[in-house]
Amino acid sequence: MMPRRISKAIQIGDVTVGGGAPVVVQSMTKTDTRDIKATVRQIKSLAEVGCEIVRLAVPDAQAARALVDIKKQTRVPLVADVHFDYRLALAALKAGVDGLRLNPGNIGEPDKVKKVALAAKERGVPIRIGLNAGSLPKTDNTKRNIADRMVAAALKQIKVLESLDFDFIKVSLKAFDVPTTIAAYQSIADKIPYPLHIGITEAGTPRAGVIRSSVGIGTLLWLGLGDTIRVSLTAPPGEEVFAAYEILKSLDLRRRGPVLVSCPTCGRAEADVIKLAQAVEKRLQKIDKPIKVAVMGCVVNGPGEAKDADVGIACGKGKGVIFKKGKKLATVDEKDFLTALMKEMEGI
Amino acid sequence: MMPRRISKAIQIGDVTVGGGAPVVVQSMTKTDTRDIKATVRQIKSLAEVGCEIVRLAVPDAQAARALVDIKKQTRVPLVADVHFDYRLALAALKAGVDGLRLNPGNIGEPDKVKKVALAAKERGVPIRIGLNAGSLPKTDNTKRNIADRMVAAALKQIKVLESLDFDFIKVSLKAFDVPTTIAAYQSIADKIPYPLHIGITEAGTPRAGVIRSSVGIGTLLWLGLGDTIRVSLTAPPGEEVFAAYEILKSLDLRRRGPVLVSCPTCGRAEADVIKLAQAVEKRLQKIDKPIKVAVMGCVVNGPGEAKDADVGIACGKGKGVIFKKGKKLATVDEKDFLTALMKEMEGI
Repeated sequence: MMPRRISKAIQIGDVTVGGGAPVVVQSMTKTDTRDIKATVRQIKSLAEVGCEIVRLAVPDAQAARALVDIKKQTRVPLVADVHFDYRLALAALKAGVDGLRLNPGNIGEPDKVKKVALAAKERGVPIRIGLNAGSLPKTDNTKRNIADRMVAAALKQIKVLESLDFDFIKVSLKAFDVPTTIAAYQSIADKIPYPLHIGITEAGTPRAGVIRSSVGIGTLLWLGLGDTIRVSLTAPPGEEVFAAYEILKSLDLRRRGPVLVSCPTCGRAEADVIKLAQAVEKRLQKIDKPIKVAVMGCVVNGPGEAKDADVGIACGKGKGVIFKKGKKLATVDEKDFLTALMKEMEGI
Repeated sequence: MMPRRISKAIQIGDVTVGGGAPVVVQSMTKTDTRDIKATVRQIKSLAEVGCEIVRLAVPDAQAARALVDIKKQTRVPLVADVHFDYRLALAALKAGVDGLRLNPGNIGEPDKVKKVALAAKERGVPIRIGLNAGSLPKTDNTKRNIADRMVAAALKQIKVLESLDFDFIKVSLKAFDVPTTIAAYQSIADKIPYPLHIGITEAGTPRAGVIRSSVGIGTLLWLGLGDTIRVSLTAPPGEEVFAAYEILKSLDLRRRGPVLVSCPTCGRAEADVIKLAQAVEKRLQKIDKPIKVAVMGCVVNGPGEAKDADVGIACGKGKGVIFKKGKKLATVDEKDFLTALMKEMEGI
């Protein structure tokens, strides 16, 4: 794994992004921002599943006004997502948001960006320059490939901010295409000191989108890039947070809740491993401890293959072996597989 | 994206692995291999969803004998997975399998491996040296880290095969830990000319395991490594094949069926994008054409953000815009979103 890129730290409320801080998990509300009650409820449920920064769309003045109450009723740092109209960004700042996301491709002239930057600077609020491959500024059409065009457009906006002595900057360069996204982030990583927000845009539904996001975000993280991540899924936002942590856990970048090691089963298995693993997974959702649990399909190979699991079961015909750190503890009957495993987990 | 590593091509039946061939998708049956009828049925259903090589566990002599009939009743190349007893490998070869997978950590003395290699050579059948982090040979305990130990153990077995002038070799070095797996493959890639079978072992259930597998396999593929992939999931094997193709599609390494671009929705959306995307995804499962379809949550940004989609819909309040390659085609009512989109797809 490549060493993590060193970036300048910024503060989104009380959350540090960059500067060697743990990779931060964020998501976005999918409620109508003007519906204060529904939005507050969704922000709270996101915070409960581990979301550390919540972004909200601010499509109009009413949504910007709603931010005042939403901010009062929630504790997780909030980022206002603004397109087209820089005045909404100004209103969001007044409402007390902890961060702004602007897509320079649609915000208009540098003068408007400047007004926002000055107001943000006054409040110490960071701005994310959030470029998407699909909405590049029209004037950047001449460069060769999309990744280069994204980088060029981002650098241009960064210069506008820097010219105002504004450096609470975060940058994202998202595309649906994974190689394009990776190329863009790799290119900009050496050119700027700012933290990177990474993700794959419009990645799709949980079934396919989670795979595309994992490949893209996972590869970037393995390359040492990325200070905060957002998994974009056409799904309830809690799903995005779950996927984000699983990506980070698979690279040992964050710990959160249990990890389930389970064998795919094969013609050697003599028990219904799929059913058992599903039942164990369901139980594990209620456990916060970062333990490693294994469900293996054969007694001979199982305990060895999962010997670094804190606790596990290797299933044989009608009987299973409970093991801890590769050491056999007890033999149990098939009907007791789940309860015996859960009991051992409690003791950890 | 890094250029693909050039490997020596081998043939598993009529499927070429390595030598610049497209990355091959494989999976494994989860039926009792001795149950010929159930196993043949599963092999056929795997082939239907695009599985190009099917592996079967051969835990005993009866399973080895079953391979004769299974081979006769199926067309996709079959690989016998043998642990502990080299005589089962000899029996599988006699039954006519197209490939063998041995885990040298448990097959025993080099003499036994030699007997298998000579029989495989006679038939032109390749052998995969399939190392797993959890079942390394006990004698290799002294090396520093697991990745190095896996590589050392694999190289030792490869030398045994090479000493017999056997070079129909494929290698895998799987661990549950993603950085370990990547380090092992990176290390061996420069040391041998043989194709690599990549995967993350015991990755878990579809919910978490697919993420871990996508991060690991995706990063390796992005690094140019991997000639054939298997996604190991505690799930019906068709799920493994689906995930494998989605990983490959996300890196433009294979095309298979449609790709769905869909926005995560946010406070700007005025239609139920999640519901629509799910409905579209379900319809797309019946379509073979490698088209790109987009479901976007807003009319203003949608067509631009998904302008390389062959066909798409951008949803507004009660109305949506059907677009092709970023060009608006028609405005439709909310009740007609799905049918209008599907109709446009037919014409492609």
